[in-house]
Amino acid sequence: MSFNSFGRVFRVTTWGESHGPALGATVDGCPPGVALDEGAIQPWLDRRRPGQNRYTTQRREPDAVEILSGVYEGCTTGTPIQLMIRNTDQRSKDYGDIADSFRPGHADLAYFQKYGLRDPRGGGRSSARETAARVAAGAVARAVLDDLVPGLTMQGYMVQMGPHRVDPARLDPAEVDRNPFWCPDPVAAEAWARELDALRKAGNSVGAVIEVVARGVPAGLGAPVYGKLDADLAAAMMSINAVKGVEIGAGFGAASLTGVENADEIHMSGEEGGERPVYASNHAGGVLGGLATGQDLVVRFAVKPTSSILTPRASITRTGDAVDLVTKGRHDPCVGIRAVPVGEAMMACVLLDHLLLHRAQCGEGVRGVIGPA
Amino acid sequence: MSFNSFGRVFRVTTWGESHGPALGATVDGCPPGVALDEGAIQPWLDRRRPGQNRYTTQRREPDAVEILSGVYEGCTTGTPIQLMIRNTDQRSKDYGDIADSFRPGHADLAYFQKYGLRDPRGGGRSSARETAARVAAGAVARAVLDDLVPGLTMQGYMVQMGPHRVDPARLDPAEVDRNPFWCPDPVAAEAWARELDALRKAGNSVGAVIEVVARGVPAGLGAPVYGKLDADLAAAMMSINAVKGVEIGAGFGAASLTGVENADEIHMSGEEGGERPVYASNHAGGVLGGLATGQDLVVRFAVKPTSSILTPRASITRTGDAVDLVTKGRHDPCVGIRAVPVGEAMMACVLLDHLLLHRAQCGEGVRGVIGPA
Amino acid sequence: MSFNSFGRVFRVTTWGESHGPALGATVDGCPPGVALDEGAIQPWLDRRRPGQNRYTTQRREPDAVEILSGVYEGCTTGTPIQLMIRNTDQRSKDYGDIADSFRPGHADLAYFQKYGLRDPRGGGRSSARETAARVAAGAVARAVLDDLVPGLTMQGYMVQMGPHRVDPARLDPAEVDRNPFWCPDPVAAEAWARELDALRKAGNSVGAVIEVVARGVPAGLGAPVYGKLDADLAAAMMSINAVKGVEIGAGFGAASLTGVENADEIHMSGEEGGERPVYASNHAGGVLGGLATGQDLVVRFAVKPTSSILTPRASITRTGDAVDLVTKGRHDPCVGIRAVPVGEAMMACVLLDHLLLHRAQCGEGVRGVIGPA
Amino acid sequence: MSFNSFGRVFRVTTWGESHGPALGATVDGCPPGVALDEGAIQPWLDRRRPGQNRYTTQRREPDAVEILSGVYEGCTTGTPIQLMIRNTDQRSKDYGDIADSFRPGHADLAYFQKYGLRDPRGGGRSSARETAARVAAGAVARAVLDDLVPGLTMQGYMVQMGPHRVDPARLDPAEVDRNPFWCPDPVAAEAWARELDALRKAGNSVGAVIEVVARGVPAGLGAPVYGKLDADLAAAMMSINAVKGVEIGAGFGAASLTGVENADEIHMSGEEGGERPVYASNHAGGVLGGLATGQDLVVRFAVKPTSSILTPRASITRTGDAVDLVTKGRHDPCVGIRAVPVGEAMMACVLLDHLLLHRAQCGEGVRGVIGPA
Repeated sequence: MSFNSFGRVFRVTTWGESHGPALGATVDGCPPGVALDEGAIQPWLDRRRPGQNRYTTQRREPDAVEILSGVYEGCTTGTPIQLMIRNTDQRSKDYGDIADSFRPGHADLAYFQKYGLRDPRGGGRSSARETAARVAAGAVARAVLDDLVPGLTMQGYMVQMGPHRVDPARLDPAEVDRNPFWCPDPVAAEAWARELDALRKAGNSVGAVIEVVARGVPAGLGAPVYGKLDADLAAAMMSINAVKGVEIGAGFGAASLTGVENADEIHMSGEEGGERPVYASNHAGGVLGGLATGQDLVVRFAVKPTSSILTPRASITRTGDAVDLVTKGRHDPCVGIRAVPVGEAMMACVLLDHLLLHRAQCGEGVRGVIGPA
Repeated sequence: MSFNSFGRVFRVTTWGESHGPALGATVDGCPPGVALDEGAIQPWLDRRRPGQNRYTTQRREPDAVEILSGVYEGCTTGTPIQLMIRNTDQRSKDYGDIADSFRPGHADLAYFQKYGLRDPRGGGRSSARETAARVAAGAVARAVLDDLVPGLTMQGYMVQMGPHRVDPARLDPAEVDRNPFWCPDPVAAEAWARELDALRKAGNSVGAVIEVVARGVPAGLGAPVYGKLDADLAAAMMSINAVKGVEIGAGFGAASLTGVENADEIHMSGEEGGERPVYASNHAGGVLGGLATGQDLVVRFAVKPTSSILTPRASITRTGDAVDLVTKGRHDPCVGIRAVPVGEAMMACVLLDHLLLHRAQCGEGVRGVIGPA
Repeated sequence: MSFNSFGRVFRVTTWGESHGPALGATVDGCPPGVALDEGAIQPWLDRRRPGQNRYTTQRREPDAVEILSGVYEGCTTGTPIQLMIRNTDQRSKDYGDIADSFRPGHADLAYFQKYGLRDPRGGGRSSARETAARVAAGAVARAVLDDLVPGLTMQGYMVQMGPHRVDPARLDPAEVDRNPFWCPDPVAAEAWARELDALRKAGNSVGAVIEVVARGVPAGLGAPVYGKLDADLAAAMMSINAVKGVEIGAGFGAASLTGVENADEIHMSGEEGGERPVYASNHAGGVLGGLATGQDLVVRFAVKPTSSILTPRASITRTGDAVDLVTKGRHDPCVGIRAVPVGEAMMACVLLDHLLLHRAQCGEGVRGVIGPA
Repeated sequence: MSFNSFGRVFRVTTWGESHGPALGATVDGCPPGVALDEGAIQPWLDRRRPGQNRYTTQRREPDAVEILSGVYEGCTTGTPIQLMIRNTDQRSKDYGDIADSFRPGHADLAYFQKYGLRDPRGGGRSSARETAARVAAGAVARAVLDDLVPGLTMQGYMVQMGPHRVDPARLDPAEVDRNPFWCPDPVAAEAWARELDALRKAGNSVGAVIEVVARGVPAGLGAPVYGKLDADLAAAMMSINAVKGVEIGAGFGAASLTGVENADEIHMSGEEGGERPVYASNHAGGVLGGLATGQDLVVRFAVKPTSSILTPRASITRTGDAVDLVTKGRHDPCVGIRAVPVGEAMMACVLLDHLLLHRAQCGEGVRGVIGPA
């Protein structure tokens, strides 16, 4: 069932509300014997942490993670890892006036219609604050992946803010950490800064597209037909707050291609002594038939503009009266920015889960080697 | 785990290969007491059936479904329903020459790398023939939904073939069944026919975008945070063969919107005696925070061009030798066409599953009514 | 997968080690709108709490539960409920000398062989301290059951300590709370007290059999074939530390019965205006074919004697050297005593889960009414 | 959810009714590359097959299994294996007169109360005929286990029929296949034959206890806390028709033991060059803390007497009228006999599932080796 869990072997359950005492993740199924402590998790949380620059919410949360179980003397034991993050800067009064109204673009009304009641403080469970727990869980997944697949790397970045896309000719992975937008294109980053300043001043917000790429994924991860690697990635990314679309490789662009254009031709790598199949292009985005091809795994997802804005929008109250709502509080003018580390974390969790699934069914040995008989 | 299962309460497991003796779906968790027989399933299979016009594969399969269990005297009993479809037109010889080669764009190589062996006949398990089982399961879901939510309707159609989109101004749901493309725009349908004839003659193929809309979905279906309705839909659609992207409502377009534009304002419907919350627009596509809003549920997915084409593409053999591959056999020049009924079936299965999940947790009564206290 | 989770809709994941900072339960899928606060949970924890009399471990733990999420203004919201219990009386030094030895009767060696490392402090994850989390989760289940099935009651008690059974002729439910053994037979309770005093002084321990009875279970809960109510109860009880056997109704005694003796004959209750089917006997223990019959649901489970005893037992060290082990620390001479509230808690969780599952598939209405057509 | 599925990685879903056209098992998650064909499964089905001697039902079913998917050229491919068994000897007329009555000891009434309708032919889904599908799935599990753990063996046998137990002094595994009761004690077997002849003539039936032992189970299989090997075995055995109790090792007898008696002391095996930990006794039955110890895994389960007997028992009709029921049809006087191969099959499925789970989390290497540092 598992409303609040994802993963099969490496299974993460998150819990907690935006303005409750704490939130966290219960991580079950983690392999034993992996070095782990708070110090290995905190840096990833710090990347997602609010209040770091003027483009993200000014809520001040240290987001300090505590490991409550599953680790002994700096090593995972194979038992559940409880990761807890205390909420410290809950200004629930910011939300007092919307307890009986429903913010447009938010889940307020749908929650009320589903459950008959809701925690209105900051959106409660539907707040993007939940993604801190994902990042913490993702950091655990990374630590395990580092152990099991040393060459595997993951990087997320923004490729579009509002209608403005990065220029593929200027993409530079090294740029990603140099600006507050995780933008790989330095020219675009400057333009985005101006754009976002203007939007913020106007009490408005904007959407974005994030791309996450994993390199060094072993060929064969994934499974037919409902355990497909891309299906799990789609669910993982779509489950992130405000995400409205997910695509793999050529994605929606594949609809416009012909079969001749789209086929990624295959040849041997030509490496002396270590020849292996490689592809001439990567329209597939690293997945065919739900299985990793060993190419770069390329996932993009679209994030809608932050719904909490200072411009009044029409809505209703619990008694059905019309109301104009301005969402005060402290909000991200482009929630897509902080979605970058979240997308990376989800990628890490999905890949580790599939790695463990694969060795469950197929073992650790390499199968299906191509070469002279 | 459930590599080949989806759904939680209404749980479907599909099995079978393209050229094995049969394929099917094991449907567990179906509510009891619903009228069902082969006659209620067959029409949906007929819509997906190959060989019906020159735009789909010429493989001749009656796709006759047999109910082997779970139904007694024309009613579901609540026990597992086994739906079996015999394969009758397997021309495995068509595939003999590719048993030791890997077709570009297909999962052949990835399967071999994962499992160390594969069923090469028509792609085995990775064949789109598996989707017949989905359609059969979807027909069961529809029968139950008809019982439980009488006003709920679902319709799928193609909105783009290759680079050619339908004209929103000409959209007419009644057109969908009048052309071989499930195209709601009669002018586009004619253009697509010409386009596809040319591509087929050229031994080429093309991609597509399909939209599936459900109307009358009860507000509140879905669940936080990893049981989100849109996350499940994303996984369901992405698991369909050849799908490379999924989006909900404004989808990737939401990235280009501002918060002011994107917010779907809320007001009361104004219906005398039955006032209820309605939205002024539907950028959300009927889902907020993972829960149905009660608006139209709008999902789109992109299908890549058929990889089996008559134009030779470079590949390798099992021994690592280079080879130029032409995929003979009988193939759809636009596999997106037959994905339309498949997308509808997945929508039906996901909606029924969430309906059952919802009543598990929240019961049957309506909660969260808006109106004077 | 869910190594540390149980339940399907009402899903409980426990976490934490005996001597870590805290332990707890993540409860997902709880129905919304149920009154709940720490005060509703604490009394159940107090029943299981150590150090309450000389027959249970002298470890002093307040076992104070904190609700970290899922409850707002005293009501469940339908989102995950995190229940945390801080460990306060960890005397890990008691275990220092067994860090490199393996206690017979405990999971020490098996954990080491599985994971390659283990948390030796008090048995780590394998400690019976984990059952505090079950009791907390069970208290949540009870609160929901009270709401949904007002007449449902559950009671656990010991029916055997060592070789000494209660006398069925003297069974009195009101006695259960009057002695430290949850013994329904006052004469047996006195004899057990003497027996246990002697065993404790001898540095020994003893096993027990616990019975848990639920009354007022709605007929029809459960499901074929691997969702059977009794199969789930068997797993739930067997998962409790030190349990070695589970039986339902006549249980192992059923093996000695003939079909004529075992058949529970059926007749109508004879209640004016509310006639319903009743059974003349209850060898079935309230379950037939995996479904509740509406009779008393009767489960018994056997608990082995506490393995931590002061009498030296032969074992080995990590380097394979022979060692005589005395388990100091503070232990229950009959761990079966504190298993009583744990068994009740598991019963509550399983029943609530099946109640939710049933309404998922079959709805809330009563089906299959017997009576004049 | 998975009402009709069990297992996590090696996942079996059974379907079908006693008198429907067919029944079977959908086996998902099977490792690839394992030799398998109908010939490897049929012998196990033949052991369970009805009509082989006068002590089992005279229904004549060839129970011929067909593999419909998941196997190519005699090898498993890693995709779902559909195992179908046609029903050929359905004499539904035998049941015509009980369509509107509820057989005592059967699930007839509970099914009706749950679902509001039922398939009355031979008990429909609740018939023990479902266990044929388990045996077929178990045969697949055995084939995989033979590959992965060559030294692993499993054997089931009856240790008690009615009140008559085997004499432990006379236990001889070689006897098990020499009598129709899978009885390891030749003297008991003769007594049982006389007993059963008398019961059959009297239109009566009797219960039994079955023991299943697995040898060569790798230490460490299983998982805390709700993935315990013994908890899964308990659920697996309890899910078999007519089972009312399950115990591991000393089982209910452990309640009567003291801690000194019960502790299985540990020492090194003394084998030159291959020293490993061994236990001086096996009260644990091969499981501690939910993990395999590497000792013999010993499970026993109690089967109630066949409820279908020729002696009239009181019951009611659908309209609430009293009726005396005689279950004609063809029934086993001791259904425990045919439960022996079923128990073995469940053991095989659970062990394989845990083997795959273990390598998912912990990999293939041996961890936690005992010996000089």
